[in-house]
Amino acid sequence: MRSFAGRDILSLKDFERDEYFRVFEACDELAPIPKSRKNVDLCKDKTLVTAFYQPSTRTRLATESAMHRLGGHVTGFADPKMTRAGDFYQESIKDTVHMLEYYGDVIAMRHFQQGAPAEAASFSSVPIINCGDGWGEHPTQILTDLYTLKNELGKLDGIRVMCVGDMRMRTMHSIGYASTQFDMTLDLVFPPDMGPTSDWRSSSPRRAAASTSGSPSRSASTRLTPA
Amino acid sequence: MRSFAGRDILSLKDFERDEYFRVFEACDELAPIPKSRKNVDLCKDKTLVTAFYQPSTRTRLATESAMHRLGGHVTGFADPKMTRAGDFYQESIKDTVHMLEYYGDVIAMRHFQQGAPAEAASFSSVPIINCGDGWGEHPTQILTDLYTLKNELGKLDGIRVMCVGDMRMRTMHSIGYASTQFDMTLDLVFPPDMGPTSDWRSSSPRRAAASTSGSPSRSASTRLTPA
Amino acid sequence: MRSFAGRDILSLKDFERDEYFRVFEACDELAPIPKSRKNVDLCKDKTLVTAFYQPSTRTRLATESAMHRLGGHVTGFADPKMTRAGDFYQESIKDTVHMLEYYGDVIAMRHFQQGAPAEAASFSSVPIINCGDGWGEHPTQILTDLYTLKNELGKLDGIRVMCVGDMRMRTMHSIGYASTQFDMTLDLVFPPDMGPTSDWRSSSPRRAAASTSGSPSRSASTRLTPA
Repeated sequence: MRSFAGRDILSLKDFERDEYFRVFEACDELAPIPKSRKNVDLCKDKTLVTAFYQPSTRTRLATESAMHRLGGHVTGFADPKMTRAGDFYQESIKDTVHMLEYYGDVIAMRHFQQGAPAEAASFSSVPIINCGDGWGEHPTQILTDLYTLKNELGKLDGIRVMCVGDMRMRTMHSIGYASTQFDMTLDLVFPPDMGPTSDWRSSSPRRAAASTSGSPSRSASTRLTPA
Repeated sequence: MRSFAGRDILSLKDFERDEYFRVFEACDELAPIPKSRKNVDLCKDKTLVTAFYQPSTRTRLATESAMHRLGGHVTGFADPKMTRAGDFYQESIKDTVHMLEYYGDVIAMRHFQQGAPAEAASFSSVPIINCGDGWGEHPTQILTDLYTLKNELGKLDGIRVMCVGDMRMRTMHSIGYASTQFDMTLDLVFPPDMGPTSDWRSSSPRRAAASTSGSPSRSASTRLTPA
Repeated sequence: MRSFAGRDILSLKDFERDEYFRVFEACDELAPIPKSRKNVDLCKDKTLVTAFYQPSTRTRLATESAMHRLGGHVTGFADPKMTRAGDFYQESIKDTVHMLEYYGDVIAMRHFQQGAPAEAASFSSVPIINCGDGWGEHPTQILTDLYTLKNELGKLDGIRVMCVGDMRMRTMHSIGYASTQFDMTLDLVFPPDMGPTSDWRSSSPRRAAASTSGSPSRSASTRLTPA
């Protein structure tokens, strides 16, 4: 298993089974802190930089409040229009990151363009956490969801998860990639024209056995089963 | 007197005389901290969540800076348009609060709708401080004003306060409710059609003796005297 | 040399040679902190108030992250539209400052009006740092640039600096004033109608020897040499 020290969290496509369980272990260790409703000193000497190019309440505040609970500092922007990164200056990701990397120790980025956090990571001396990139992925959301499923159901293998909505959304991509590492069945329910992209299908070879049955009115269903 | 531990501050309608003096006592205890211009560690392990759905400079920054002076952490939003709470998603108060309550230890909320903080409090596991709700109330503003009056005049009983402006404003409501707990006379001066609402009048039964004298041009005056 | 304790940083017009070197000394002392990527406790008991009336990424975040690296607290606003200072209330600088000065220990202000930070300083009990004021100055930008030049070139005397762009911009003013304290030559390259203002020229008497040579197409060049 690769170390998480200094590692970017950009996609779940490259997460291996053991790595999920390492994340859940860390969650178990940290969970008592927010439950105690006390901030601790663990990350007191660290600063989180938020770079949110798209509106967010829960992802941004969850990330910030986690840093506060760990005693760390937070700076950054929630509204790109108030920065030169988002207004008519349209500063490049590269230039923005070569500034932000000196303002803290980790950058949490949401961006309207798929791949922007990965581009940022290619230039940054500090880790980038992808907090949602366009139609791309939303790895921290799905890590949280899987942690909840594991705690509620006691396991991730042998479960069946129904995903309802627009399969082109970033959370759907992330859970799709994650599910390949478990003995997990996804039932995808979506309106016509909101099905999974061919790109996403082809990157999940274990999905070859998926069967699709169109519903008469406004929804279709795909059952993705492990090969 | 009810305890303030874990208590919401939503309205001054339900504040009793002793409770005002308890607040002033706490103010006296804390006042040396900002005067010394040093942050202390008193609330180091606590996080304040600001949820401002309306523009604010002094209320938001006063609340935040108080938390900073006490060594605490601050997160939240000053601009609902940058969150799913305020944009086209129009997330419900209930859903928003069931998220925010896990991000900190107290929520300071300003909202354009009267009663929104009270609704939030009905769902929240942490205290809600009403920092102004539509045409409702602005309790922390009036607590500050009364503390100033007490310090400047040495008393709150036997004083006469002139309130000038639009009597439908939230600060007017809060001082109206507060004044019922003291031997205090309010002189209300307002343009026609900006007088106190019947709802507000009826909820202050001691106001029955109020006399109104219309001025010829653009203002009217109501003297509210204790019954 | 005047003390920097409690001093406003409004303009480089009044900075003397020794003061630049005192600033660089402080930079040398503090530089290991961000390089170590650890926040320290040096300013733990201090709060920075940011008052940004204009968009900014690097100046605001650089200032905030410096405070975080020193362990201090940060409050304020990055978007005046979300405050009564910038919306239709159009609160005066005086009124805004008489509020902000109680929320922290230093105010970092960017404003679209030249002179606004100086006006703020005339009312404030805490120091004001001018983070850019309209067509005025941008002293912290130029202090940073000079520190970089000194470190890269080993000296500030005897160097020649080419300034390219709109000479009416605030950074150009600040470097112009700064250059008078060193044996430094500025080559100014600018399109027609973007040359230095007469006000700026006249306030730099040592610039009397400046020679201008218009270029045929879209740029002109002024060499400013020490008298």
